[in-house]
Amino acid sequence: MGYSAPRGTVDILPGQSEKWIKLEQLLRTIAANYNVKEMRTPIFEHAELFNRAVGDTSDVVSKEMYTFQDKKGRYISLRPEGTSGIARAYVENKMYGLPEKLQKVYYMGPMFRYERPQNGRQRQFHQFGVEMLGVESPYVDVECMLMAVTVVEALGLQNVTLHINSLGDDASRDAYREALKDHFRDHLDELCGDCKARFEKNPLRILDCKVDAKHPAMKTAPKTIDYLSESAKNHFDKVCSLLDDLEIDYVIDTNLVRGLDYYSHTVFEIISDDPKLGAGATVGGGGRYNGLIEEIGGPATPGVGFAFGMERLLLALDNEEDEDEDGLDCYIMPLGEEAKDLAMQIIAMLRANGFTCEMDHVSRGLKGQFKSADRFNAHFSIILGEEEVKNEVVNIKCNHDKEQVVVPLENILAHIENHLSGGHEHE
Amino acid sequence: MGYSAPRGTVDILPGQSEKWIKLEQLLRTIAANYNVKEMRTPIFEHAELFNRAVGDTSDVVSKEMYTFQDKKGRYISLRPEGTSGIARAYVENKMYGLPEKLQKVYYMGPMFRYERPQNGRQRQFHQFGVEMLGVESPYVDVECMLMAVTVVEALGLQNVTLHINSLGDDASRDAYREALKDHFRDHLDELCGDCKARFEKNPLRILDCKVDAKHPAMKTAPKTIDYLSESAKNHFDKVCSLLDDLEIDYVIDTNLVRGLDYYSHTVFEIISDDPKLGAGATVGGGGRYNGLIEEIGGPATPGVGFAFGMERLLLALDNEEDEDEDGLDCYIMPLGEEAKDLAMQIIAMLRANGFTCEMDHVSRGLKGQFKSADRFNAHFSIILGEEEVKNEVVNIKCNHDKEQVVVPLENILAHIENHLSGGHEHE
Repeated sequence: MGYSAPRGTVDILPGQSEKWIKLEQLLRTIAANYNVKEMRTPIFEHAELFNRAVGDTSDVVSKEMYTFQDKKGRYISLRPEGTSGIARAYVENKMYGLPEKLQKVYYMGPMFRYERPQNGRQRQFHQFGVEMLGVESPYVDVECMLMAVTVVEALGLQNVTLHINSLGDDASRDAYREALKDHFRDHLDELCGDCKARFEKNPLRILDCKVDAKHPAMKTAPKTIDYLSESAKNHFDKVCSLLDDLEIDYVIDTNLVRGLDYYSHTVFEIISDDPKLGAGATVGGGGRYNGLIEEIGGPATPGVGFAFGMERLLLALDNEEDEDEDGLDCYIMPLGEEAKDLAMQIIAMLRANGFTCEMDHVSRGLKGQFKSADRFNAHFSIILGEEEVKNEVVNIKCNHDKEQVVVPLENILAHIENHLSGGHEHE
Repeated sequence: MGYSAPRGTVDILPGQSEKWIKLEQLLRTIAANYNVKEMRTPIFEHAELFNRAVGDTSDVVSKEMYTFQDKKGRYISLRPEGTSGIARAYVENKMYGLPEKLQKVYYMGPMFRYERPQNGRQRQFHQFGVEMLGVESPYVDVECMLMAVTVVEALGLQNVTLHINSLGDDASRDAYREALKDHFRDHLDELCGDCKARFEKNPLRILDCKVDAKHPAMKTAPKTIDYLSESAKNHFDKVCSLLDDLEIDYVIDTNLVRGLDYYSHTVFEIISDDPKLGAGATVGGGGRYNGLIEEIGGPATPGVGFAFGMERLLLALDNEEDEDEDGLDCYIMPLGEEAKDLAMQIIAMLRANGFTCEMDHVSRGLKGQFKSADRFNAHFSIILGEEEVKNEVVNIKCNHDKEQVVVPLENILAHIENHLSGGHEHE
């Protein structure tokens, strides 16, 4: 007998969790730099929210959601992505009425999709995302993209390129949709069943199809930027010129359409050729979505955002090892019960003064205890044998320079403070 | 039309999320002091795990779990508490075989119970918990309690008391269970239906019953500590003497039984009379659970742990206001498009140097922009009008001493660095 984690989920164990904490702290620091505040929405929402916000023709909603009925028969879904919840909370909490018209928020946490667990895709995975709501401006688009680039650069990823495209405004999209239909109409018989359905409902999604990706008509399909209205073109030109001013490398990628229903104007992806991720890996992406807030019942509100898969960001961090960073300050080594009682007092005192400490709890001999001091990468071993207890002293060994000194009980704190104040920082 | 968060869940908005982050950082710091590492387990588990680990006669499992079938018909439950997942992961990942026999881990995050949302109890709530697995020792019990007390003290809660009791080992519990049954047998007709069922299955739970709490037989019920075996009594005596040595205030509370099936030996709760929480509020609690790991398929492994409701911990933090702490370093105020383009470059440069910055994105006049600088509690306002753009300077106003100086573009960073290096810290 024995239980296992549900398929598609993983445990994040000690040794790995420190990397998650490090990643989260890095993201929080960048968010603070950009004046982006955290927003936390529930793990589940009413299923209709996702049907409406993500679109019920998308695979995410139609095939991959964890949806169940609660005891009152309401359909509840574990969130498959973060934007819908943020948008719902923005409307429900009337954040459009706040004095700051531009609301900039981030989220990070678990998301859920019932996919075949493969290619490292988990059913519970984690996303970091940013939404900037309330202002339609190419400056905000660029702020958003710049923040995404900053994240990727802060992780030390190499060969990063920003890919951008514009889907334009409603008028542009209408014109483009007709052009796409005209283009694909003659090939409809050759396309997959899903694409046949997409043809009427949302022909842009045909361009995202994995089944028909190699059909020759894909290559010759019209490009969104050839159908931009005057004002949509101005918006996109400004985005490009701001990126030029900021010396951000980017390529205009006319194949980038990000098939979600709600995107308009700027869409972007960050591609990296860093060997840690493999060639041409998409690290994350996003875009402007001017229709979403209205779609779910709020006032017409422009927005722009992006999301990163945190598992992927973690890969980028993975080779960066700081061996020393996580070491303990002190490992306390009592021999015998009397020493152990005293060790409890010493450790409580040191911890209360902000030092990270551990002691032996399995009553081993010195050899076993030194092994633990090693494993915990302790700066000091504090040895407390019968002799030391009798003389009211401890034996402090610095595991860096191997120096060993006898210190009276009342001087332990001063000794540790003096010797750690140099290279070590504490709260 | 409009969507709302599912009943019993709340959004944590900007303004509140900062407090959560602060609480989490405080908990992580204390965990590091105690050499306790984070472990993250999935949001859902196979339902049987909770049936087995928490016990299917408990209200939590029998009435309050969010359980649903996945597409393969497996029963999946959103986790109602944190210990079961940690225990499952400990067994599945064979952590009992690690060289460090004592494994100390913490978790924090959302838990889910389908309760009537009342008394501030949410269906999605959050817990911080610690589990110390692998060693049966009164020293570890005390380490665990001490950590719990440290958390509560670090939050600044007043009038905190540690309540402890011992349920003893298997022999003690068998003896006690019989004594309890003898005691309640004659009152069985007067007790509620649930208690009648508990009488055979788990008579200890009768003592936790809310319905029968005032029945006179409750007060006269036998006490666990009168039925402790010799070795269980030694264990408890050692716990008490260690607490005495450490000068931790505690009371022996013989009514404390914490009705979960798996507890044995030491159980404890932390009660506070702090006005922030109300009189006699239980902040958190825990205890030793020697049978749990074996129950779910692992080798016999002792454990001790505790959990706190994070919503309650947050109340303790709520009155602590650090107005200054969250202020921006710079708010940049461009007037006109040319100024805005330049502002984008200045802000990117300042952020890249670790300063928290915002700029106007809605093209307001000075008055509106100064209001935002105020709201964001910006240390500096950097004003950039037509004149400044022409002269390649900015006007930097310190919002603390109201001093205003004209600074050439190339000196902005140096100016900000000089004036913030005093009282302000950056990554």
